[in-house]
Amino acid sequence: MSAEGPTPVILKLGGSAITIKNRPLTLDKRAINRLAGEIKQADMDSLVIVHGGGSFGHWVAEKYDITDGYKEESQILGFSKTHQAMTLLNKQVVDSLISRSIPAVAISPASMIATKSGRINIMEERPLRNLLELGFTPVLYGDAVSDTQTGFNILSGDQLVVQLAIRLDAERILIGADVDGLYDADPKTSQSARLISHITLPQLMKLQEEIAKPSTMDVTGGMFGKVLELLPVLDLGVQVIIANAREPGTIYKALKGETVGTLIEKGEQTETLY
Amino acid sequence: MSAEGPTPVILKLGGSAITIKNRPLTLDKRAINRLAGEIKQADMDSLVIVHGGGSFGHWVAEKYDITDGYKEESQILGFSKTHQAMTLLNKQVVDSLISRSIPAVAISPASMIATKSGRINIMEERPLRNLLELGFTPVLYGDAVSDTQTGFNILSGDQLVVQLAIRLDAERILIGADVDGLYDADPKTSQSARLISHITLPQLMKLQEEIAKPSTMDVTGGMFGKVLELLPVLDLGVQVIIANAREPGTIYKALKGETVGTLIEKGEQTETLY
Repeated sequence: MSAEGPTPVILKLGGSAITIKNRPLTLDKRAINRLAGEIKQADMDSLVIVHGGGSFGHWVAEKYDITDGYKEESQILGFSKTHQAMTLLNKQVVDSLISRSIPAVAISPASMIATKSGRINIMEERPLRNLLELGFTPVLYGDAVSDTQTGFNILSGDQLVVQLAIRLDAERILIGADVDGLYDADPKTSQSARLISHITLPQLMKLQEEIAKPSTMDVTGGMFGKVLELLPVLDLGVQVIIANAREPGTIYKALKGETVGTLIEKGEQTETLY
Repeated sequence: MSAEGPTPVILKLGGSAITIKNRPLTLDKRAINRLAGEIKQADMDSLVIVHGGGSFGHWVAEKYDITDGYKEESQILGFSKTHQAMTLLNKQVVDSLISRSIPAVAISPASMIATKSGRINIMEERPLRNLLELGFTPVLYGDAVSDTQTGFNILSGDQLVVQLAIRLDAERILIGADVDGLYDADPKTSQSARLISHITLPQLMKLQEEIAKPSTMDVTGGMFGKVLELLPVLDLGVQVIIANAREPGTIYKALKGETVGTLIEKGEQTETLY
């Protein structure tokens, strides 16, 4: 079990891409089965999957008011139920992968991670790394985890993806979203919004300045906040691709290295955006 | 979140006490609901639960021939399925505890532990400890885990119980079995078999010598092998109680410190056995 081997790709499957948004605790079985098929077809040497909470984790966390961390003892059972909802979603995702003969292994963030004021502080990734090197596909998720400062906390899949990429020396992060990629304006409200096909870190920082201007919310349709979480890995030279997991075939193409969605990398200021 | 607080009790629920032995992947719902009620009634300040595999983990591990560790690539999917079977059993146990308002949190051994040649080598218990100190009841299980020497391995709930007791500074280990305790002969074949109500470490070592004589198998009805795994904690002064989890009320009594089953402790050579 050497530490060598192929560099892993980290695939994030957004909660909105695998669950039915407005129906509590409902997996989008068709979507996850199709994605499992695309992942099987891509036949990756080294792959880690992280999925979001969608109508499982987020719904339960909001119902029991634990989104902002521990405040009072009555929340305790809500934390238990949120973690339990996420293990249920994870079970269904892993079962679907296994049914396609992908050797997926459920890895529970609350079991190996503690945050401190919301940021990952303790993280034991060696068991996961052992499994990855043996040919398994670890499957993690955004989760309710303990926090050494605030008691507990909701750890986002995006923060987890970044730490995994750093600790596992990942080559690429692929964000499977419910939109086509990063836009220069909100495609839902602006007809002139254009999909950015390639953006570099300096260009991203410039875009951030524009977005941070008063009175403009996240004009890119919600994707920009997620991208900001990824800055540390971009700086390390990890490529980030945002692609539409709702569009059949796109995740397969992205896993195989074909051009889809938005590619974000360290790069120079001068490259073209579209 | 200080490191102080009440010393935890570790409750092991044997797979044969919570599943239906000869029916694959079948929880004994009545048994686990009753046990959840007894645990709720005992109202423990600090409790960790570890359950066995029963007709879930053992059955799948045998079906896919992974009991003796990694031998060839075709076993990979069997490992995935074994871990998945255990997360399913664990989910049902945790759901039952939560339905009794016990703030149970599923903790996945494969996510935080790696063995080396079958013995626990890497173990990150801090997230679990954080949760325990907040008032949660972590629920772990015997699991398929990675092994830095042999690839992977089946980690017994008994080995896990010992490491948890050491690392969490436990006061007592309570083994919920499907027998009344430790016998001086096999109660299923010997009419003269007597339940040992109290045995000390020196007496246990003496019993071991007798049992190790050629041609005698484990004459105590299978319990003795489990007890040998517990020697390191006995030496540290942790009390071990073996009690019948199949007998209603017994786990409640044992949790409350009442005399049931067999008490094993460090003690002296001279104490009485019965």
